[in-house]
Amino acid sequence: MTATSDRDFSPAEHAELALLLEVAGTPKPGNVDRTHDLDDLRFEHFLAGSVGSRRGLQLAEEGARVGEAFEHGVAGMSQQRGGNTQFGCLLLLVTLVRAAASDDHELTPEGVTAVVESTTVADAADFYRAFEHVDVAVDDPPADAPDLDVRRGAGAIPTLEERGLTLADVMAMSEERDGNAREWTGGFARTFATAESILADDGPVLDRASRAFVDLLAEEPDTLVATQHGPEVAREVSRRAAEVQGDPEAVERLADEFVAEGLNPGTTADITAAALFVALERGLPV
Amino acid sequence: MTATSDRDFSPAEHAELALLLEVAGTPKPGNVDRTHDLDDLRFEHFLAGSVGSRRGLQLAEEGARVGEAFEHGVAGMSQQRGGNTQFGCLLLLVTLVRAAASDDHELTPEGVTAVVESTTVADAADFYRAFEHVDVAVDDPPADAPDLDVRRGAGAIPTLEERGLTLADVMAMSEERDGNAREWTGGFARTFATAESILADDGPVLDRASRAFVDLLAEEPDTLVATQHGPEVAREVSRRAAEVQGDPEAVERLADEFVAEGLNPGTTADITAAALFVALERGLPV
Repeated sequence: MTATSDRDFSPAEHAELALLLEVAGTPKPGNVDRTHDLDDLRFEHFLAGSVGSRRGLQLAEEGARVGEAFEHGVAGMSQQRGGNTQFGCLLLLVTLVRAAASDDHELTPEGVTAVVESTTVADAADFYRAFEHVDVAVDDPPADAPDLDVRRGAGAIPTLEERGLTLADVMAMSEERDGNAREWTGGFARTFATAESILADDGPVLDRASRAFVDLLAEEPDTLVATQHGPEVAREVSRRAAEVQGDPEAVERLADEFVAEGLNPGTTADITAAALFVALERGLPV
Repeated sequence: MTATSDRDFSPAEHAELALLLEVAGTPKPGNVDRTHDLDDLRFEHFLAGSVGSRRGLQLAEEGARVGEAFEHGVAGMSQQRGGNTQFGCLLLLVTLVRAAASDDHELTPEGVTAVVESTTVADAADFYRAFEHVDVAVDDPPADAPDLDVRRGAGAIPTLEERGLTLADVMAMSEERDGNAREWTGGFARTFATAESILADDGPVLDRASRAFVDLLAEEPDTLVATQHGPEVAREVSRRAAEVQGDPEAVERLADEFVAEGLNPGTTADITAAALFVALERGLPV
C-alpha cells in the first residue's frame, strides 16, 4: 500500500469534503445529519448540494472573484429538490478557499480578511444574483436601505452600483443580524477558533463535528433561529445547548426535540463546515 | 425561485453523487451505510473517497482513456485512512461516464460495450498500476497466468505488453470470479436493469438504493463475499437476502447480522452505485 497523505486534497476538494462531513456529523441538534432528516429537507439533498457546490469551490481555487465563485456554487448547490442546503456554508467557504489557494494570501485571519477587503461592487452584484437560484431565509433589510433587500435579487444591482457598495460593505451592513456576515467582517474568528478545537479533539471526525457544533451553539445564539423565531428563542436554544455540552445522550435527545420543535440552527452549521475546512487544510485526518 | 433541473449535473457530477447515494442508502446489509460502520471502515472514509474519486470521473468525462481515468480516480479515492472504499465502483463508473459524456457513444449496453472494446494495453497497464494505490481484496489469479496477478501491480505490465492484453481482455479473464468484470463483458446488464428498477420504484432515493441493493444481492451471489468466504457462504448470503426482500424491518435485522458476521457484499454495492449513476443520468430526481 502506497503511503498517501490527506494533504494531497486541493482546497476545493477539502471544502466539498467539509460540506459532507458537516452534514454527516451527528447529532447536530435541529439540523439534518447522518441520522436526522427534516420534513422536506433530507440528507440526500445535502449530498447533491455538496456535489453541485464543487463548481463554485473550484472556481475560487482557480482564482475567480469571490462573488463569481459564490454565485456558481449556489447555482450548482440548488440542483436538488430540497431547496437551500448550503448557501451560508458557501459564503464562508469560497472566501476561505480563495485565501488557501492564493499565492497572495494565507489561510489565516489576516489572509482571509485581505480576500474580504479585495471584493468589489461586481462581487456584491454576484451575491445578490445568487439569491435568484434558491429561497433563503433572511431578515428584513435595514429600514434605511429597502432597495438593498436581498430578496430583490439582481434588481438591487443598480443601487449597489450607484452607492459603490462592495461585497465587504454589504456584509458589514448585515453583521448585526447574520453570524456569517460577522465571520466575514471579523477575520473568521469563530471559524479559526473552532478549527483548532476540532484539531485538538480526538476520535472519529464525525463525532468531532458534532461536538464543535454544540459548542458553537452554546457559545452564541444562532442568527438563523433568531431570524425565523426571534432573538429570545435563539438565546433559549443556546441555553439548552449549553446544558447538554459533553453529554452525548442528552445531545441526542436535544436533537430530537429541536427537530420536533422546528428549531434549525443553520448558521451554526455553516460555521461548523467552515471550521472543518480549515481543520482539513491544517491536517485533520479522515 | 428559478426553475432548475437535475439534468444540469454533468456525468462526472452524477457519478460522484451516485457514490454518495450508494453509501448513504440504508439498510444495505453488511456494508457501510448511513447508519452502519464497520470496525476500521467508516462512513466518513466513503465521503472522502467520493470526493477524491471525482478527479478520475472528471478525466473520464473529458475523454481520457478509461484506464487513465480509473487510475487517477483510485489515487484520489485512496486519500483517506479507511483503505479501499470504492475501487470496484470506479471500475464501473469511469466506463459509464465515458459512454455518457462521449459524442461517439451513448449510455446504453451497446454504447458502453463500445467503450469496453476500445480499451488498449495501456488501459490494462493503468488498471494494474491502480492496485498500487490501495489494498484490494482479490482472488488468486488463474493457474495459467501467475504473471497477471493484480497484486503484482505495475510488475505485471511487461507480461500485459508481451501478450498484447487490453483491459477488456483482462476483464474477460476475471469474469468467472468477479461480478464487476462480468458487467464489463456483458454490456453492464445488471447495472442497466437495476437502473430501470430504481426509476420505476418510488419514495426517497436512499430507500430506493437500499431496495436495489437487496434485490441485486438476492438475485446473484456477491463475488467479494465469495472471494473472502468461499462460494457456499456467498450463496447463503443471497438466500438470506431473498428471505427479507420487501420487509424493511427484516432487512434492518439482516444488516446488523451481516456486520456482526463480517459479511461484506461489496460487489453488489458497486453495481448499486453504477445503477444509481445510470438512473441519475436518466432523470432520477434527488
